[in-house]
Amino acid sequence: MLSFVNDYSQGAHPQVIEALGRLSSETHPGYGEDRYSKKLEDWVRQNALAPQAQVHVTAGGTQANRLVISSLLRPFEAVIAADSGHINVHETGAIESSGHKVLTWPHENGKLTADGIREILWQHSTEHMVRPRMVYISDTTEWGSVYTKKELEEISGVCRSNGLALYLDGARLGSALSCRENDMTLADLAALTDAFTIGGTKNGALFGEAIVLCRPDLFPDFRFMQKQQGALLAKGFACSAQFTALLEGGLYWELGERANQMAGRLASVFAQAGISFYLPPTSNQIFPILPGPLSDALSDKAEFMLQMPVRGGVVARFVTSWATKAAQIEELDTVLWELLHGNGDSVRM
Amino acid sequence: MLSFVNDYSQGAHPQVIEALGRLSSETHPGYGEDRYSKKLEDWVRQNALAPQAQVHVTAGGTQANRLVISSLLRPFEAVIAADSGHINVHETGAIESSGHKVLTWPHENGKLTADGIREILWQHSTEHMVRPRMVYISDTTEWGSVYTKKELEEISGVCRSNGLALYLDGARLGSALSCRENDMTLADLAALTDAFTIGGTKNGALFGEAIVLCRPDLFPDFRFMQKQQGALLAKGFACSAQFTALLEGGLYWELGERANQMAGRLASVFAQAGISFYLPPTSNQIFPILPGPLSDALSDKAEFMLQMPVRGGVVARFVTSWATKAAQIEELDTVLWELLHGNGDSVRM
Amino acid sequence: MLSFVNDYSQGAHPQVIEALGRLSSETHPGYGEDRYSKKLEDWVRQNALAPQAQVHVTAGGTQANRLVISSLLRPFEAVIAADSGHINVHETGAIESSGHKVLTWPHENGKLTADGIREILWQHSTEHMVRPRMVYISDTTEWGSVYTKKELEEISGVCRSNGLALYLDGARLGSALSCRENDMTLADLAALTDAFTIGGTKNGALFGEAIVLCRPDLFPDFRFMQKQQGALLAKGFACSAQFTALLEGGLYWELGERANQMAGRLASVFAQAGISFYLPPTSNQIFPILPGPLSDALSDKAEFMLQMPVRGGVVARFVTSWATKAAQIEELDTVLWELLHGNGDSVRM
Amino acid sequence: MLSFVNDYSQGAHPQVIEALGRLSSETHPGYGEDRYSKKLEDWVRQNALAPQAQVHVTAGGTQANRLVISSLLRPFEAVIAADSGHINVHETGAIESSGHKVLTWPHENGKLTADGIREILWQHSTEHMVRPRMVYISDTTEWGSVYTKKELEEISGVCRSNGLALYLDGARLGSALSCRENDMTLADLAALTDAFTIGGTKNGALFGEAIVLCRPDLFPDFRFMQKQQGALLAKGFACSAQFTALLEGGLYWELGERANQMAGRLASVFAQAGISFYLPPTSNQIFPILPGPLSDALSDKAEFMLQMPVRGGVVARFVTSWATKAAQIEELDTVLWELLHGNGDSVRM
Repeated sequence: MLSFVNDYSQGAHPQVIEALGRLSSETHPGYGEDRYSKKLEDWVRQNALAPQAQVHVTAGGTQANRLVISSLLRPFEAVIAADSGHINVHETGAIESSGHKVLTWPHENGKLTADGIREILWQHSTEHMVRPRMVYISDTTEWGSVYTKKELEEISGVCRSNGLALYLDGARLGSALSCRENDMTLADLAALTDAFTIGGTKNGALFGEAIVLCRPDLFPDFRFMQKQQGALLAKGFACSAQFTALLEGGLYWELGERANQMAGRLASVFAQAGISFYLPPTSNQIFPILPGPLSDALSDKAEFMLQMPVRGGVVARFVTSWATKAAQIEELDTVLWELLHGNGDSVRM
Repeated sequence: MLSFVNDYSQGAHPQVIEALGRLSSETHPGYGEDRYSKKLEDWVRQNALAPQAQVHVTAGGTQANRLVISSLLRPFEAVIAADSGHINVHETGAIESSGHKVLTWPHENGKLTADGIREILWQHSTEHMVRPRMVYISDTTEWGSVYTKKELEEISGVCRSNGLALYLDGARLGSALSCRENDMTLADLAALTDAFTIGGTKNGALFGEAIVLCRPDLFPDFRFMQKQQGALLAKGFACSAQFTALLEGGLYWELGERANQMAGRLASVFAQAGISFYLPPTSNQIFPILPGPLSDALSDKAEFMLQMPVRGGVVARFVTSWATKAAQIEELDTVLWELLHGNGDSVRM
Repeated sequence: MLSFVNDYSQGAHPQVIEALGRLSSETHPGYGEDRYSKKLEDWVRQNALAPQAQVHVTAGGTQANRLVISSLLRPFEAVIAADSGHINVHETGAIESSGHKVLTWPHENGKLTADGIREILWQHSTEHMVRPRMVYISDTTEWGSVYTKKELEEISGVCRSNGLALYLDGARLGSALSCRENDMTLADLAALTDAFTIGGTKNGALFGEAIVLCRPDLFPDFRFMQKQQGALLAKGFACSAQFTALLEGGLYWELGERANQMAGRLASVFAQAGISFYLPPTSNQIFPILPGPLSDALSDKAEFMLQMPVRGGVVARFVTSWATKAAQIEELDTVLWELLHGNGDSVRM
Repeated sequence: MLSFVNDYSQGAHPQVIEALGRLSSETHPGYGEDRYSKKLEDWVRQNALAPQAQVHVTAGGTQANRLVISSLLRPFEAVIAADSGHINVHETGAIESSGHKVLTWPHENGKLTADGIREILWQHSTEHMVRPRMVYISDTTEWGSVYTKKELEEISGVCRSNGLALYLDGARLGSALSCRENDMTLADLAALTDAFTIGGTKNGALFGEAIVLCRPDLFPDFRFMQKQQGALLAKGFACSAQFTALLEGGLYWELGERANQMAGRLASVFAQAGISFYLPPTSNQIFPILPGPLSDALSDKAEFMLQMPVRGGVVARFVTSWATKAAQIEELDTVLWELLHGNGDSVRM
């Protein structure tokens, strides 16, 4: 069946598999002390203009978020996130399981705002409350939107004026930085945040997130934390080798762009069918508002997720990836046309 | 340089890489709800004669141990381990970070004994102390030894008579079950323990441990725990596909056996050089006692670990794997001969 | 200076001091296994018509909340509370420090609603999210309001239909059950909740909260949890003896009523001065809306807390207790009159 | 029945009750920001010659230990203790529940040694292991012994040379500093440790431990930690007032000395009966070795605890306190004489 459920349904890009194949006959030290990990760190330092940065790889995104956040916070400190933030909703309380409160503010277009951060700071003043100490955002957001450089500068400014660390979850950074609305570079991220991740799992790698500590002084003894949380891969080289294969020739950004293009075409398909969107399509996740009967009928033909009911139907989520093929978009176009205009059992909206 | 540091210095066995390559063009549901994960579970159920078993895959061993142990224990409950146990020494307090005490007893040949367990039970009687609730052992042990069926039966008996769950860490299960001293089968493990792991990282896989819950009723809602701890892989299929590639044709046991054979040859090399062992060589880790000067000289030619000083020298650890080549053993033989008998700078012991 | 800051600014009621004095020459077992603790449990069982109930004493309210909640929840489970709930705002993340998320819903008059609970349940469906498992409410609430029996029945009903435990924080239960708007008895609480507390610290005791487990089967091994969290008092008898002194002759309810009466008089003072309230005065905490200049001027003469700015001024909190004297109310009346109508430096509003 | 079970079986010393009585008609700020807490801090600063010290009160000893230790350690750091240490054995895993490993070394006469600390440091070298960061000792120890100034200096020296903080649990400090073998002052403790406690519960107070932070810079934001752990008493003044009553006139040391004297007399009773001791009687806990039949017979006449079997009988623990009366010692003497020499049913040893 046609699937637009997510962007981690395929294995790895063939060039990544090739790189992994080479490892069978090489010998490397364990635990990320290998030369692929060194190469990855060098690449990031050069390309993010951050000679001081440290790079650590880990298997997955929830792990990376929990690790970064709990490495910085003291027990009574909290992290601020949009209410829609991944750490708040979709990580089964991983941050709280490390002992920390997630303080939330209503998102705007999926994004946290500088004003929201200020408001939370204002509310937390005494030792009877947690102390806000970090801000978590993601790019792209859970709603597929991206931060502008101006927005990130404003957030970064609030953080720095108030002793808050800023962490950007880049599980979908490939899509974010290669989409049309983006006006940021890796160097901007490194300059404006204290840590961010470069997501591999959703953009061509078999698995893996690269954690970039832009200010390693804020995360002393990071490897102790990493080991304790089961996030220090014995074969760190097998993760770093994927990232070097993706990043060194620019494949990573090509794959992000490809996913975005597929999502753009998909958005056109919906738009031409007269379907509107919850938020303007931007990256590789788009959110058409499907009338109830159409949603039901379409779900027999294609896999996708439902986010929430709204007036006029339901907000659906369609996700594309580097592995999405043009033929799949065409097939969805056909299916949609059939459902809306076909004879017999066409859907009345 | 010659390396006998560990058994996770290479990538994956070529057949595993092939299996991973196939995933690039397939589409699978995320989070372990795919057909490779189903096949893996079916294989385990049939081959361990445990139709009730659940199988969950995760990226690494520390993660697997923390997950299994903390999923079962209530906050005031503790796990019993040999003082040499991996969870006690080499996981940076991962179990304690999940809130639980590790109660230890001195190991005998690397193993925990039924008597040690009984002693700990006897010492813990009131609500002013933690309550022992689980026993952790590993096969092979940290000292390369293996449990006999009789030993495991005795431990299992103590556990069952006293309401203790039994968990066996099989990070090196391939070596354990394929070594000469072993008299156990997967079915024995499934019958005698409540959970065990089948280690992939150290035996042919790129990464991954398969957690077998022999009594899933003791671990309700395991996937919630897995997600919370960052141990639910988005691409679970990429882990399970490696295990099915390894297990279905028996490759897993062949690789374990190969590692053991290489270790056996290595042991002969040491023995012929008149070097004795801290424990009788059994599996893919051997522990020769090197006189100090020899240890120093040898470490210029080969990588290996030092465990602890003993009378007459230092206990060293040499590890082989599926990827160890006969030529490496021969080279070590030559090096050793040179050091002991060569002209010029031979080592006086 | 006149103080209406809180209800824990004095020591204990003289009858409690007397009871404590008697303990100097008595000998009791430690850790709550004494006859005062037994008497307290018997009193609760009889007066709450709950022969199965267990009673445990502990030193403070945050401790009691953390203990009860974390004793019941498994690591991935969460507690639901009003956004204004004490555990959400004023306990420095104590619940999160025990590993659990607090799921919040906007309060109505300080109260959590059955609809809010239903909404949260609806939103939490998969293992990627925490699982709601408990509901936390307090009576009186943070805004001084009380639950009606009908409201509690409705909440209890939602909980029981959905496998949620219900816990009522009674730090101010003396005031709650003795106020005019209340239509509940201890027996109602015991029938409708799974656990509740009877607060001593704020109602005549030197310190202490009595935790009533109405369904002890939901909290097995509670004393282990209590000890682990430092909440098992060595001299449990010194806490229980205070409760028996307060409860056996009805002094506890008299003190609650006295606090409420003083708050009622204080409310009249404000009302007669033309000052309105954020919420109708109900229990021993009242919330007049003070125009800014009045608030400033009044704070030179009396201690009270400010809650938040609103149109027309600021919501202030005035708290009375069993130790509040009529003369203090009169003094405030005079001060207020002077500020509003006196010559010279009267406040223009 | 005669009871020598522990030193927290009575309420408070009458002078403490008097001090508590006075609080009923005074008004104080909550949470330790009152003038009794200030007076207590001033007293400690002057008497321990530590003008920089901070003092915080809390309800009990387990709470104090958990609070101090977890306030200083980062998640992967561990505390070193004697294997007999209270935090290791008798706090139901409270330290582990805060996420930290307790590293143990066999005690010598109940004490931790500088050599033991060095050994543990030597064993912990990489990020695969926890990092030792603090040393926990208690004075008196679990076996009733006391540290000499020389021993404490040696331990303190090892700590300071190795970046370890030193914390001394003074739950029985009254007995420790007033016993004959002691050669230390409060000022020595303040100079040699980074934090210590002055125990109230076991020496005249109704409840309470005073935590002295000799190096408050090591414990920034301590009050946040205190509140989060439920260890910030609403009526902090009720705890501090007890300490000022005990300390200002020297009553605290008198009570400790009285307990020790009673223990000394009790030791003479046993010695005259030909009974030897596991360790030389030193403070208010003594450990006679009772032949089995005598232990059984005596337990019908007096309450005491059994520690462990040894050759020739069982090690028993007899504890005295400020409230122990000479008549009780005499009664035990009589009982013992009867059991050993009386007609009829005298005990054959």
